[in-house]
Amino acid sequence: MKSDVEIAMEATLKPISQVAEALGIQPEEYDPYGRDKAKLSLSLLDRIADRPDGKLVLVTAINPTPAGEGKTTTNIGLSMALNRLGKKAITTIREPSLGPVFGIKGGAAGGGYAQVLPMDDLNLQFTGDMEAIGAANNLLCALLDNSLHQGNPLGIDSQRVELRRVLDMNDRALRNIVIGLGKRSDGVPRESGFDITVACEVMAILCLTAGMDDLKARLARIVTSYNGDFDAVTAEQLEATGAMALLLKDAIKPNLVQTIDNTPAIVHGGPFANIAHGCNSVLATRMALKLGDYTITEAGFGADLGAEKFFDIVCPSAGFQPDGSVLVATVRALKYNGGQGVKELGTEDLDALGRGMANLERHVENLRSYGVPVLVAINRFPADTEAELALVRERCTAMGVRVVDSEVFAKGADGGIELANAVVEMCEHPTQPARFQPLYRPEQGLRASIERVAREIYRADSVHFTSLAESQLARLTKAGFGGLPVCIAKTQYSFSDDPHLLGAPTGFEITVRELSVRAGAGFVVAFTGNIMTMPGLPRHPAAAGMDIEADGTIIGLS
Amino acid sequence: MKSDVEIAMEATLKPISQVAEALGIQPEEYDPYGRDKAKLSLSLLDRIADRPDGKLVLVTAINPTPAGEGKTTTNIGLSMALNRLGKKAITTIREPSLGPVFGIKGGAAGGGYAQVLPMDDLNLQFTGDMEAIGAANNLLCALLDNSLHQGNPLGIDSQRVELRRVLDMNDRALRNIVIGLGKRSDGVPRESGFDITVACEVMAILCLTAGMDDLKARLARIVTSYNGDFDAVTAEQLEATGAMALLLKDAIKPNLVQTIDNTPAIVHGGPFANIAHGCNSVLATRMALKLGDYTITEAGFGADLGAEKFFDIVCPSAGFQPDGSVLVATVRALKYNGGQGVKELGTEDLDALGRGMANLERHVENLRSYGVPVLVAINRFPADTEAELALVRERCTAMGVRVVDSEVFAKGADGGIELANAVVEMCEHPTQPARFQPLYRPEQGLRASIERVAREIYRADSVHFTSLAESQLARLTKAGFGGLPVCIAKTQYSFSDDPHLLGAPTGFEITVRELSVRAGAGFVVAFTGNIMTMPGLPRHPAAAGMDIEADGTIIGLS
Repeated sequence: MKSDVEIAMEATLKPISQVAEALGIQPEEYDPYGRDKAKLSLSLLDRIADRPDGKLVLVTAINPTPAGEGKTTTNIGLSMALNRLGKKAITTIREPSLGPVFGIKGGAAGGGYAQVLPMDDLNLQFTGDMEAIGAANNLLCALLDNSLHQGNPLGIDSQRVELRRVLDMNDRALRNIVIGLGKRSDGVPRESGFDITVACEVMAILCLTAGMDDLKARLARIVTSYNGDFDAVTAEQLEATGAMALLLKDAIKPNLVQTIDNTPAIVHGGPFANIAHGCNSVLATRMALKLGDYTITEAGFGADLGAEKFFDIVCPSAGFQPDGSVLVATVRALKYNGGQGVKELGTEDLDALGRGMANLERHVENLRSYGVPVLVAINRFPADTEAELALVRERCTAMGVRVVDSEVFAKGADGGIELANAVVEMCEHPTQPARFQPLYRPEQGLRASIERVAREIYRADSVHFTSLAESQLARLTKAGFGGLPVCIAKTQYSFSDDPHLLGAPTGFEITVRELSVRAGAGFVVAFTGNIMTMPGLPRHPAAAGMDIEADGTIIGLS
Repeated sequence: MKSDVEIAMEATLKPISQVAEALGIQPEEYDPYGRDKAKLSLSLLDRIADRPDGKLVLVTAINPTPAGEGKTTTNIGLSMALNRLGKKAITTIREPSLGPVFGIKGGAAGGGYAQVLPMDDLNLQFTGDMEAIGAANNLLCALLDNSLHQGNPLGIDSQRVELRRVLDMNDRALRNIVIGLGKRSDGVPRESGFDITVACEVMAILCLTAGMDDLKARLARIVTSYNGDFDAVTAEQLEATGAMALLLKDAIKPNLVQTIDNTPAIVHGGPFANIAHGCNSVLATRMALKLGDYTITEAGFGADLGAEKFFDIVCPSAGFQPDGSVLVATVRALKYNGGQGVKELGTEDLDALGRGMANLERHVENLRSYGVPVLVAINRFPADTEAELALVRERCTAMGVRVVDSEVFAKGADGGIELANAVVEMCEHPTQPARFQPLYRPEQGLRASIERVAREIYRADSVHFTSLAESQLARLTKAGFGGLPVCIAKTQYSFSDDPHLLGAPTGFEITVRELSVRAGAGFVVAFTGNIMTMPGLPRHPAAAGMDIEADGTIIGLS
C-alpha cells in the first residue's frame, strides 16, 4: 500500500471556498489560508446560533498500545462514509502537535484512505494556531520574569512559579533548566523548564472558550505563581490579558479543511489528554453541530482519559449532549492488552485476545454509565484471523454491544459504510435513548470527584493522596477552587497509574501526588505517576528521513 | 493626530487578489492568507526571470537615536508617492519581530499615513514566517542535544556548541541558562541560552537564499558546534537539512501586502543588522525588481551597519546593482547626535544641530564611496524650526547633496511627492551615473576586510583583535572560511564601538573580541562590544496597554 503522504499528494482537493459554500458558510464568514484551508469567523456562530444541533458522536478507544488503534482514522473515515449515506457529516479533530512529527510518531491527520488534507500543512505549521498559543504563554512567562526582575512589585515567590515556557518541539534538554543566569540585567535566577506547547493552559483555555470575551476572562484567571503568603498571582495582575488575547485573535477561529473525499473537517486546538482535557475546541464542535447533521469528534488517549474528560469536563462546560459513542479497537491492540509481545502481534493468539477483551469490555461499561449509547468498531488489519474476529464478536454480543468492522484505512468511505449505518441506527433509532449525564457533581469537592473517577472509571480500590497532595487539596479548596471538575493526569497505557498493568487490572490503589489549578481552563489537575509534558527525540528521529524537493514534493512525512 | 492603529483600522484595503493582478501576478502564482495577505510562489520568479530589472533604491539612515528617524515610514511613503507619479513602485521591507512589539518599540510597519497594512497582522504573527524560522532553528538544536544524549556519535564538545535556541519574545531571563538538568533521561547538562528569532542564522539564510535548492545547501552548511579536534559539526551531519527545509516551505515565499494607498508591498524576512545583514529577503527584492519600475528597499540601523552590509554582503551575493540611495534623518536625531538631551529635542538648538550634521555628512561620503548616488530626506517633525531646516539645507548644499523634506508620516503620498521627484531624477537623470562597487574584495582575507570597513566606513584609526579573536581568525581561515565577507556586529548608536560616541567621532580604535562563522549565510561575524541578541522587557512593557475587543477592535498596538 502507498504511504500516507503519497496518498495525500495524489488526492484532488476542492477549493476551500467550495467546501465552505457546501456548508452554507458565507464568503465574509471565513478567511482563506492558502487555497485549501480557511479560518471560520466567530460571526458565523452568531448567525447560526439558534439552529438545532445535529447528532454528536464521540469516537474513543481502548487503552493505547504500541500497536496503534486508529481512532482518528476511524473518526475521519466514519464522517466520509456518513456523507456517502447522504448525511451532512463533519469530522472535528485536534490539530497535530509539531514536535512529535520529528520524533517517532509521524503525522496525526488520519491515515491511509481516511485522511484530512492537506496532511503536510496539518502536520507542520497549519494556520499558526500552535505558534500563537505558544507566544501567548511565553509572553506571560516573560512578563512574570520581568516582574521579578523589575523589583518584584507583586511579591512573587520565585520558587512558587507554576507557569513554564513552551516550545512545539520534542526537546528533552529543556525539561529542567536554570534561567536568569549571567549579570544582574539578565534577570533573576531560578529553576524552571519548558513543556511542549499543547501542554500549556492557554491551549486548554482556547479549546474550552465560548468566544473572545470569555477567552479574556479565562486568560485573566490563569494562576501563574504564588506570593509569600501563598496567594495566587494571576495573568491579570501581570497585565497580560489583553496582549495575550491579541496574540490569539486568529487562533481562536476554527480551521476548515476537507477529507480525502472532499467532505468537511474542522480542525482546531489540541490539548493533552492527561494534564488537560484532550478534545478539539468547543467552538469547532459547536460550529459543526450547527452546520451538519452529524458531528464526529474524538478525545485523546483511551476512554478512561479522553472520554471521561469529554463527558465530565467538556460537555457540562459547553452544554453538549452526546448522542452516541464509538469505541475503536484493533485485534492487535487487544492481544497486546492480553499480554502478547509487540513483535508477535501478527500471529493468532486467542488466549491473549480473550484476556485483552476485558479492557474493551470495561470501557464499554464505563461509556454506558454516562447514559451514552456505544458501539465497537474494529479497525481491521490484514493479519486479523477469522477466529480472532469471531471471538471479538462473541464477547461483544455477550454484553449486548454492537460490533462492526471498519476498513476505512484501506478503502476510505467504502470501508466505513457498515459502521456509518450502525452509527445512524444508534443515533436515530437507539434501543435505549441517550440520557447523558456526567459521572460526578464537582460541587461535592475535589476529593470526592477524584475518588469517583478512580473507583468507577479506573476501578481502583482506593485513592492515596500524598502529604503534598493533601496540603494542596486543602489550599485549593480554601482558595475557592474546590468546586471545579478534576482533570486526572494518569498514564494512558493502563486503567491504573502503573503503565505496565494492561488489560483490566483490579486490586490497585491510585496515588495522587500533586494537585495544580488551571483556573482559566476551569479544572484542577490531579497528577498520578510521572506525566511527561516535554517529549524527547528517539535515537533515530523521523526528522532525519524528511525532505522537500524544489518542485514541492515532500518525503518522509507519514 | 490619530494613532497608527487608528489610522490603519480606518484604511480601506483592496482584496489582495486585486493587488496581485495589478502587478501581473497570475492566480496560481500566489496563495491568499486571509483577504489581505498572500504568499508569492517561487514559480512566479521563474516565469519573469528574464525581464530587465527596475530601479533599485536603498533607504538608509543616520545613526539611530531615541528620537527616531523614520526610515521605514519614509521608504513606504516614497513608494506611495512614486505610484502617484505614475511609476509602478514596490516597497520591500523586513517583517517586524514580535518580541519588541510587547516591549517599548511598538510596531514596525511604518507610521502615520505611510504604513503597510494590515499593520496588526504584520506586527503580530503575519503569515507565520518567524515561527517557521524559529522552529527550524530549534529543531536543529533539539537534534544536536539529542545527539549528545544518544551517545554523542559525532563527538560534539558540549562546551563548543555555537547554536542557541530562539524565541520571538523579549525575554532576558533566557539569555543565559543551563539546560539538560534532571535525570539521565533529561539530556546532557550544559550552558546555553536563547536569542530572539531574528538573530538566528536560519533567518539570515532565508533572506540571502536564491531558492529551495540553494536553501537546502545553505542549511546543510550551518556550523552548529565543534568536536574535540575543533572540526565543525554541521547541520548536514546532524541529518537536519531536509526537515528544516520542510519547515521553511512556506516561509521561503515572499509576502505580498499593500500600503495605506493600496500600492504593493513585499514584506519578507527580517534579520538583525549587527550579527546579520539587516535586509529583507533577496527573493522579495528580486521579485520586486522584476515586477515594478522602482523597488524601494531598506537596511537596518544606520548606514554604517545596514547600508554597508547591503552593499558588501547582499548586493555581491544577489547580483544587485543599486541605482540610488536615500539617507533619512530628522532634525531631532541630528541634534541628539550633536549632544542635545533627549528631553530638549523640541527646542531649537543650532549648535547641537551643526555638530550633529557631521554624522549625516560622514554617511553621505560613505554612501558615495560605493559609487551610489545619494540624496538626503529630512523626515519632518512639527517642532522643526525654519532656522534649523535652513542649516541642514546649507550644510547639504555645501557638500553637493540634494536634501528634500518628507512629510509622509503626516500626509501620506502627498507628503512625499517632492522626495519621489528627486528620486526619479537621481535614478533616471543622475549627475553622475551609478557605478556601484563593493568596498572590499573578500578574497583578501578576513583581517583585511574588517580593517577596510573599520577604517573607511567607521573611520577608526586602528583595529585591535583580542587574543581570542586572533586565534579564531587563524582557525576560521585554516578551515576555509577566510574568503567570506565579514558581518561586523557593532553598536548601532555610534560609528565607533562605543555607543556613547555620537556624531562623527575620530581617533578611536575598534576592538574585535570574537569571530564566528555563519557558513550557511555565507559570512563571518566579527563581534565588537557587547551585542544584545535577546532583548529584555522594560519596567512598563507595552503589552500592558494592549487589548482586543470582541468586535475585533485592537487597542494599544502602535
